[in-house]
Amino acid sequence: MGTLNETHDPALRSWVASANAADTDFPIQNLPLAVFRRRGSHEAFRGGVAIGTQIVDLAAAVARGAFDGAAARAAQAAAGDSLNALMALGPAAWSALRLSLSRALREGAAAQPLLESCLVPQADADYTLPARIGDYTDFYTGIHHATTVGKLFRPDNPLLPNYKWVPIGYHGRSSSIVVSGTPVRRPLGQTKAAAETPQFGASQRLDYELELGFLIGTGNALGEPIAIEDAEAHLFGVALFNDWSARDIQPWEYQPLGPFLSKNFGSTLAPWVVTMEALAPFRAPLVRPAGDPQPLPYLDGRDDRARGALDITLDVWLQTAQMREAGQGAVRLTRGNAGEAAYWTPAQLVAHHTVGGCNLQPGDLFGSGTLSGPGADQAGSLLELTQGGQRPITLPNGETRSFLADGDTLILRGSCERAGARRIGFGPCTGTVLPARAPRS
Amino acid sequence: MGTLNETHDPALRSWVASANAADTDFPIQNLPLAVFRRRGSHEAFRGGVAIGTQIVDLAAAVARGAFDGAAARAAQAAAGDSLNALMALGPAAWSALRLSLSRALREGAAAQPLLESCLVPQADADYTLPARIGDYTDFYTGIHHATTVGKLFRPDNPLLPNYKWVPIGYHGRSSSIVVSGTPVRRPLGQTKAAAETPQFGASQRLDYELELGFLIGTGNALGEPIAIEDAEAHLFGVALFNDWSARDIQPWEYQPLGPFLSKNFGSTLAPWVVTMEALAPFRAPLVRPAGDPQPLPYLDGRDDRARGALDITLDVWLQTAQMREAGQGAVRLTRGNAGEAAYWTPAQLVAHHTVGGCNLQPGDLFGSGTLSGPGADQAGSLLELTQGGQRPITLPNGETRSFLADGDTLILRGSCERAGARRIGFGPCTGTVLPARAPRS
Repeated sequence: MGTLNETHDPALRSWVASANAADTDFPIQNLPLAVFRRRGSHEAFRGGVAIGTQIVDLAAAVARGAFDGAAARAAQAAAGDSLNALMALGPAAWSALRLSLSRALREGAAAQPLLESCLVPQADADYTLPARIGDYTDFYTGIHHATTVGKLFRPDNPLLPNYKWVPIGYHGRSSSIVVSGTPVRRPLGQTKAAAETPQFGASQRLDYELELGFLIGTGNALGEPIAIEDAEAHLFGVALFNDWSARDIQPWEYQPLGPFLSKNFGSTLAPWVVTMEALAPFRAPLVRPAGDPQPLPYLDGRDDRARGALDITLDVWLQTAQMREAGQGAVRLTRGNAGEAAYWTPAQLVAHHTVGGCNLQPGDLFGSGTLSGPGADQAGSLLELTQGGQRPITLPNGETRSFLADGDTLILRGSCERAGARRIGFGPCTGTVLPARAPRS
Repeated sequence: MGTLNETHDPALRSWVASANAADTDFPIQNLPLAVFRRRGSHEAFRGGVAIGTQIVDLAAAVARGAFDGAAARAAQAAAGDSLNALMALGPAAWSALRLSLSRALREGAAAQPLLESCLVPQADADYTLPARIGDYTDFYTGIHHATTVGKLFRPDNPLLPNYKWVPIGYHGRSSSIVVSGTPVRRPLGQTKAAAETPQFGASQRLDYELELGFLIGTGNALGEPIAIEDAEAHLFGVALFNDWSARDIQPWEYQPLGPFLSKNFGSTLAPWVVTMEALAPFRAPLVRPAGDPQPLPYLDGRDDRARGALDITLDVWLQTAQMREAGQGAVRLTRGNAGEAAYWTPAQLVAHHTVGGCNLQPGDLFGSGTLSGPGADQAGSLLELTQGGQRPITLPNGETRSFLADGDTLILRGSCERAGARRIGFGPCTGTVLPARAPRS
């Protein structure tokens, strides 16, 4: 598990002035990675590191000899069109690159002239997915989400008996994961009402799910589980993730094998991956309510208990087409905290996923599952916020929503703030709903 | 949908004498593809085509100029370490390569001396997976399997109400799919008995699942469904597939999101992909029992009704460690027919998977789900064959099995046989069970 070092010093300032703004997501203490190119260009996508409003172009920096030794090897691995090669190098390499960048970007650094020539404004960048995602697994760590959704189906027995023992997860679809900013088309599908014959048409209950995406760094061989004590070292970083869901397709299709078309029409990953090392000042103990069972030994790590959770504030914002046309900005629907919402830590997810021998690979993605807090204003989905669509919310401009409408733009935001540490953020994760295609007759 | 042409002529004979044996899986009418190299070598893996006991090395054949035009482009695409590039080219390219090979391998072909120099005996080959599998989806098309397994859980209501409307499927794990011959380690996991605290240890109910694997050729763009009429053209071919399952891990973990660790510790794909064109003589009408609902329009294609099903005989064989030590061959456990077992056709799976907009990519794998016939001797899993483990089977040497034991080798075989057509086969799909690792204390 990452420990605090000079890169976390809250007094550090960068010669990139925008990185010193109080409200930036990307101060010099963050240094998240993405894969980008200049907007509208046919340049090769390559890795970059955010600093204030700028991106350090790692391919350019490598070409200009900005790094030495382990940092140079790490930067070279990140200069291609995905971060997989960097992810495969492991924590020592990630850390060497971070330290080198932190030193080169500080006020007074001798490297300033060299790195200045490698900056690209974020405003001029297009992004692609930060990793080639081989396999994507979606977990269900949000216990308040599981309880609230369970209540809609089973009022007397909302939480299933396995929930506090098994970090519930299922395999998701990799091919339809898109980077933030890509529109998402409302899906067609079968839904069931009273009649014997199911209906076919556009989903009428399209929803978002507020999640964290955990990107795997180094993997494991098939048949070789990762112990809980070693699990954290296999995690590369965290990006915001929206697991769009069709709530009317899901109940009809999901028995007995789980969600399928209700989830695989598109999932949105933010471009910026905040490394586990950057998150080190924002770790928290894993607290289980009194009376809850202790995790089985393979899920119970001493360090993980002490600081396996993530203290991340998560916001959901909505801008409707009508708001956009009227020049009105997005409105915040909810705010919650990842650490309070999640019953299982990322390390527990790694240990559980591999305990039967399943192999992880660099760039694999774990979704946290919907991260809802205990309060109604902390819901991570409209399903919860509107009580299954029964209590539509009213927006400031008078529009109402039970579920998402065509043209709605959904924006996830995340940030970490603590006394004694510099605030860091995740950048937005956005997607706009396109109307469904007309079904064939 | 492929139609019959000269490559299907049952009178064709090859100058490769072993291809003319009555019981070969690989006569000149088959020509399946795999990715191979010489056993124990460090050669590059490359595409090959089976003919009798031999493999036509496509990389060597391309280098020696064995093909022209579209066939040359297709062979070049198949000369790398996966068939994905060939799969992406589409049916015209696949067909051109097949026709060219069929002509070059016939008795009297002028190409004989050239291609003879490109043959590698299958006995000297190691295989890898035929495709880089981006995403793997497992379906549940075996209605007798769904009914029998459903009865074990719900005696009065074995088949769920969505079954005859929705081609039920779920996302599986790509990373742990291995090629035939790779041992599979018995998984550790949580299981639930009477006590409140679940148990942790090696699965005691390890099972196989007899499936067909459908390999996707050309894909579709995100948001663009594939119509049922076009679906067959997106299918590249079929390989035998064993979806190993831990029956004691599954019931405790699978609610509410489906199977996870009970399935992702390993799945075995045969090396040889029999193309849809080779299967053209063995297609069958899709028969729905009287009184069953007709498929919704997006799943109902005229050609698909007429011959969307696959008439493939499927066998399961078992060789225990004791049998192997005694020099005894494998014994057949069951025999069934894919067309009788499956309620949905491969084209319906393609149309359903994409109807909400999900994108398929070349090399994606669909599992058919367990293909069990209506009879007890047609079961595609031990779960069915032993009635949930309650009625162990007795093998000829006196051993009994409720579920698989360490050292058991499971062998799937498949073949197509019809009047007026040459018999073709799939080659074996095998795996041996390794003992579980000792759990950490």
